Amino acid sequence: MTSAHRDPNFYAVIPAGGVGSRLWPLSRAESPKFLHDLTGSGHSLLAETWHRLQPLAGENIVVVCGTSHAAAVRRELPDLDASNAILEPSPKESTAAVALAAAVLFRRNPEAIIGSFAADHVIEDQRRFVAAVREAIATAASGYIVTIGIRPTEPSTAFGYIESGEELEVAHAPHAHRVVRFVEKPDLATATEYVEGDTHLWNAGMFIAKASVLLDELRANRPDVADPIDEIADAWDSPERDSVLARVWPTIPKVAIDYSIAEPAAEHNRLAVISGDFHWDDVGDFASLARLHTKGRPNLLATLGDNTRVLNQGSSGVVVSQTKRLISLIGVKDIVVVDTPDALLVTTAAHAQRVKNIVEAIRESGDGDVL
Amino acid sequence: MTSAHRDPNFYAVIPAGGVGSRLWPLSRAESPKFLHDLTGSGHSLLAETWHRLQPLAGENIVVVCGTSHAAAVRRELPDLDASNAILEPSPKESTAAVALAAAVLFRRNPEAIIGSFAADHVIEDQRRFVAAVREAIATAASGYIVTIGIRPTEPSTAFGYIESGEELEVAHAPHAHRVVRFVEKPDLATATEYVEGDTHLWNAGMFIAKASVLLDELRANRPDVADPIDEIADAWDSPERDSVLARVWPTIPKVAIDYSIAEPAAEHNRLAVISGDFHWDDVGDFASLARLHTKGRPNLLATLGDNTRVLNQGSSGVVVSQTKRLISLIGVKDIVVVDTPDALLVTTAAHAQRVKNIVEAIRESGDGDVL
Repeated sequence: MTSAHRDPNFYAVIPAGGVGSRLWPLSRAESPKFLHDLTGSGHSLLAETWHRLQPLAGENIVVVCGTSHAAAVRRELPDLDASNAILEPSPKESTAAVALAAAVLFRRNPEAIIGSFAADHVIEDQRRFVAAVREAIATAASGYIVTIGIRPTEPSTAFGYIESGEELEVAHAPHAHRVVRFVEKPDLATATEYVEGDTHLWNAGMFIAKASVLLDELRANRPDVADPIDEIADAWDSPERDSVLARVWPTIPKVAIDYSIAEPAAEHNRLAVISGDFHWDDVGDFASLARLHTKGRPNLLATLGDNTRVLNQGSSGVVVSQTKRLISLIGVKDIVVVDTPDALLVTTAAHAQRVKNIVEAIRESGDGDVL
Repeated sequence: MTSAHRDPNFYAVIPAGGVGSRLWPLSRAESPKFLHDLTGSGHSLLAETWHRLQPLAGENIVVVCGTSHAAAVRRELPDLDASNAILEPSPKESTAAVALAAAVLFRRNPEAIIGSFAADHVIEDQRRFVAAVREAIATAASGYIVTIGIRPTEPSTAFGYIESGEELEVAHAPHAHRVVRFVEKPDLATATEYVEGDTHLWNAGMFIAKASVLLDELRANRPDVADPIDEIADAWDSPERDSVLARVWPTIPKVAIDYSIAEPAAEHNRLAVISGDFHWDDVGDFASLARLHTKGRPNLLATLGDNTRVLNQGSSGVVVSQTKRLISLIGVKDIVVVDTPDALLVTTAAHAQRVKNIVEAIRESGDGDVL
């Protein structure tokens, strides 16, 4: 793929935010999920995300991350230009991160189309991913806010869904449909209907829109977020950046982009969806990590980590090793073992969601040094 | 209990041999089971054994152990007299260990009665234990080789059994019976019959006899063991000890005392049994260790180790911690987690017996540094 195929107005935005606390003790506040190699590729999820977007955006890739992760992000992304690193003084959820990137890019290029893609998801079919984003860019160019929905391959109750409506007539976007509504994580029966039907897609949190359209939508719905973002963006490429940021950033309300932009846009008939037929996974917990590595084959034990010495007799699940210790497993099924220098987790895939509770318990117990 | 109640001819012998490989990675070649505190008492099993025997034998306690464990044994038993430490140049199984102690003690005191007690078992009712050994000493004084059988409290298939026969008329030993035969580890149905019946006792590997009687029995059955033992014992308390030991010890056949002495003595009607009504456990594997600490209560998680930081949500079983790491367990039932600086074991109580196989696999895999 050459730059000739790229839309020069397209900018990829990677909000590198959440810790991924359901992946503790692998993910930590200082070493969040996006800095880890969860696929065994030798690259962090962040670096994989960068490489996936480069054919679409070239060097026009903006990363939004916390100041405490800036050094690690620079190590992972040696090609990231300093002007494309947006450092947040404190975490403010996805709306602030994406809107600030949009507002800064809009001031640099009023025709900018931005696409926001999480830093810590796994996508396996690069060609289909690129094709879907291309359709999304074409649809965004005609004024829509666009999301990419993943065609479900199983009745997942861990994801939210997007209900797609009538086809849209957009050039170069044969799969563009109107979004009817977003659906919260369903129960199994409902999820099973969704898989069998043709209209419900997984919400993968990807949003593509003209920066101007996105900011207008935000301004209409949440001026309390849009106004301080505009004030910061006005100062961004000026000597005033730091002082304005220090003064204004703390006042920004925390809100997820789903509530501030996506759902209202759907209600206003301004949201489109492109269905993606590629393998996507948010690797949200250890059950998902195990599935990713065993490809759903039961009785398989996946192991992740350098220097991994694992002796297994009749066990299945996943072992994550960050030490040089010998790990022996005997007859434990669907097990999750995460072995790090200062913390050990043992659970099963079925209880993977409860890791978050343990993290809360640790926070309250005063053992927060391991978080 | 004062020394006035002690038989001055009684000597306790503690063969401190086996590694306890089903307790790996807690037990190691260099740090075998008997050196560990498995009860949470703050003392090693060896030290507990010593303290249990002291009311019966005073300072007349002989420990037989490998030269590589001599320093650790001295640390555990500061009151052990150097003359009562018998160091084996290489492991030769229980017959050589007990017979050498008997032969050395016989030469020091021809009236010696010895009682051999494993270094790594757990006994909880000291008073009843002492009473049973007293009866065994009285029975041994009248010429029998005597064992103490434990009245079974459950249909264990992990222990061998002793079938007791008619009562013996021995002064001061109202519970002395003749041994009909030894029974290998039975199946569950058979073990259940044994628990319901009145004649089958657990073989706890305790043997009490006049040293002279024990050595005569060995000489009759296994002169190939008895002869070199006599040769070494003749030289023991002389300047020749080391040279004779170096020359003769390697020639001694390895054989368990059950086969060389106990079973033949039973056939020759020279074996007596005292039934013991105290709690005894050989803590042979992690299932047994878990049972010991949870007292059989399901849904309980037992934790062993210093500096143990364990966070548990809905797990049961046993955690052994030898590191300072935080250990989190979520929803794992009957789990066994053994956390040591260089090796981690995760299994379940049901698979506890298979730990031995893992140890074999490690030996073959070239990871023997952790054994």
